[in-house]
Amino acid sequence: MTILSDLPNLDAVAALADTLPVADVAAAGAARARQDSLTKPPGALGQLETLAVFMAGWQGAERPVVRKAQALVFAGNHGVCARGVNPFPQAVTAQMVANFEAGGAAINQLCRASGADLSVIALELDRPTRDISTAAAMDADEALEAMRAGAGAVDPGADVLVLGEMGIGNSTVAAALACAGFGGAGAEWVGAGTGSDADGKALKAQVVDEAVALHRGARGIAMLAALGGREQAAICGAVLEARARKIPVILDGYICTAATVPLYGADPRFLDHCLVGHVSREPGHRKLLEKLGKEPILSLDMALGEGSGAALALGVLRAALECHNGMATFAEAGVSEA
Amino acid sequence: MTILSDLPNLDAVAALADTLPVADVAAAGAARARQDSLTKPPGALGQLETLAVFMAGWQGAERPVVRKAQALVFAGNHGVCARGVNPFPQAVTAQMVANFEAGGAAINQLCRASGADLSVIALELDRPTRDISTAAAMDADEALEAMRAGAGAVDPGADVLVLGEMGIGNSTVAAALACAGFGGAGAEWVGAGTGSDADGKALKAQVVDEAVALHRGARGIAMLAALGGREQAAICGAVLEARARKIPVILDGYICTAATVPLYGADPRFLDHCLVGHVSREPGHRKLLEKLGKEPILSLDMALGEGSGAALALGVLRAALECHNGMATFAEAGVSEA
Repeated sequence: MTILSDLPNLDAVAALADTLPVADVAAAGAARARQDSLTKPPGALGQLETLAVFMAGWQGAERPVVRKAQALVFAGNHGVCARGVNPFPQAVTAQMVANFEAGGAAINQLCRASGADLSVIALELDRPTRDISTAAAMDADEALEAMRAGAGAVDPGADVLVLGEMGIGNSTVAAALACAGFGGAGAEWVGAGTGSDADGKALKAQVVDEAVALHRGARGIAMLAALGGREQAAICGAVLEARARKIPVILDGYICTAATVPLYGADPRFLDHCLVGHVSREPGHRKLLEKLGKEPILSLDMALGEGSGAALALGVLRAALECHNGMATFAEAGVSEA
Repeated sequence: MTILSDLPNLDAVAALADTLPVADVAAAGAARARQDSLTKPPGALGQLETLAVFMAGWQGAERPVVRKAQALVFAGNHGVCARGVNPFPQAVTAQMVANFEAGGAAINQLCRASGADLSVIALELDRPTRDISTAAAMDADEALEAMRAGAGAVDPGADVLVLGEMGIGNSTVAAALACAGFGGAGAEWVGAGTGSDADGKALKAQVVDEAVALHRGARGIAMLAALGGREQAAICGAVLEARARKIPVILDGYICTAATVPLYGADPRFLDHCLVGHVSREPGHRKLLEKLGKEPILSLDMALGEGSGAALALGVLRAALECHNGMATFAEAGVSEA
């Protein structure tokens, strides 16, 4: 049973916002007080302090821990590839899924380094979504089905959830979602993706403009079916299921973050439990993070997807909790205060 | 025996620049070629790729590894505290050294998280340097002695060296070194440090201006004795010894980076093997990194010192090498190229 199991239809997602658990203010406050008692000038650990307090709120504990970290990578294929938006052949999606399963991709190494259990969920790769520049990518039932796949993949025992994606063509889908959600021209939201040149980026911008114009009536969660893909829908489902279980989420880069725009459009509270692991080299990502009010943990000029930036950020989150839980207070250490 | 054991005097440091080993261009080139063959778009791992290639050059191996990481934290006391530049009492330096030794500080948790062996070297804490606004902090022999302590602490078997510092008052010393090295007014180089308010920062700026004017004739390595402290000199010694052994270094924040300004002034090549773990919240640090041509690995609004940002960055470096060594190539994984 997931939060989506009994949902009658896609339109019913928005109303879930009023039913979701929220962060424990008392636990977060206790964690903030603990931070201020530790042997360092107040605030000197910067974002590490913010991360520890954030985790305390969602875990409802002054001293939150990450015993089990889950990483989920969702893969899908996209009809918009018919427009030639990506230099790689669409077969690469399945080839990379095989690479994930064989342990040869970046995300495998990064999950091992940061101690995350990785699962890869391929979503009907032989049945791409429809071309968003000429039709809705999915109908509402298809989108809900992919959301349910995402929700069902969440380990209820996880203390934190790392999300990532793979899908040739999906940086165009990301730009379309961001553009539809926050306005502006397609050219403001597209980037090189896996390696488009100037002509390729111009084509992506044109395709995004066409798609956004065609689906301008699809707001909120309806935008997910109109402009998204199965891996975007699965990410939304996993974000919702994690929220229902008070599991904090680390989103990855541009594509993963843009996947949540329909949720944000339906209700910004849907993303309250989401961190963003890094800011991507894709120029649209920083702009999107500003719109969403999210501060990235890392900024390493990465643009790979797969959850790579989120998995790397998990290491920083773990270090933040080590400091929070392991440091001595001024009183314990006998250190004089200012 | 260290690189400094037979050095006749402090002035002789500069000439070492012509004797130092340099990075292995062939190994770095092989690592770059390997990166371009891995299953990702070229460059998609951003700074992780740069870090792997950097390590390959210094280790002289296409696939560099970090088996042993050493962290050294040097502590010293500063006569300039007589000017009231720090809200904490000077006794905190020794108290924090005890906290490091007891395992209660941030650096202890961060070294455990990133797998570094931590040693703390307290340098004559009961004998502070002289007040830099009225005299040279150390004479040349004292500075060389502290450099030798730093060089002697380096583990020849380390694959990477994390450097940090502790010393009440040393953010003023850092600002003085940066200001003397790169010009401008003291106000452009001082920050809140451990918690100075606006008046405290104005006082720090004035003290820096006085000290820099007093010692304007001390250039290059002589600046270290005039304006530095024992932990700054020890950092310089450790940087030199690491270089002689081709051990890459991760510098920490503002104070640790500013400690190397006299080396940079003597010869910029002295810092070729140095990474910078993070950019500090101290406003002078970003400016200093621009002057030194160094790109920080992390930017987490931290301002603690102790090597905390460098130890955290070690985790990113390890992850970079995991990707570099563990990922499959396009050919190995049977993934189509663009």
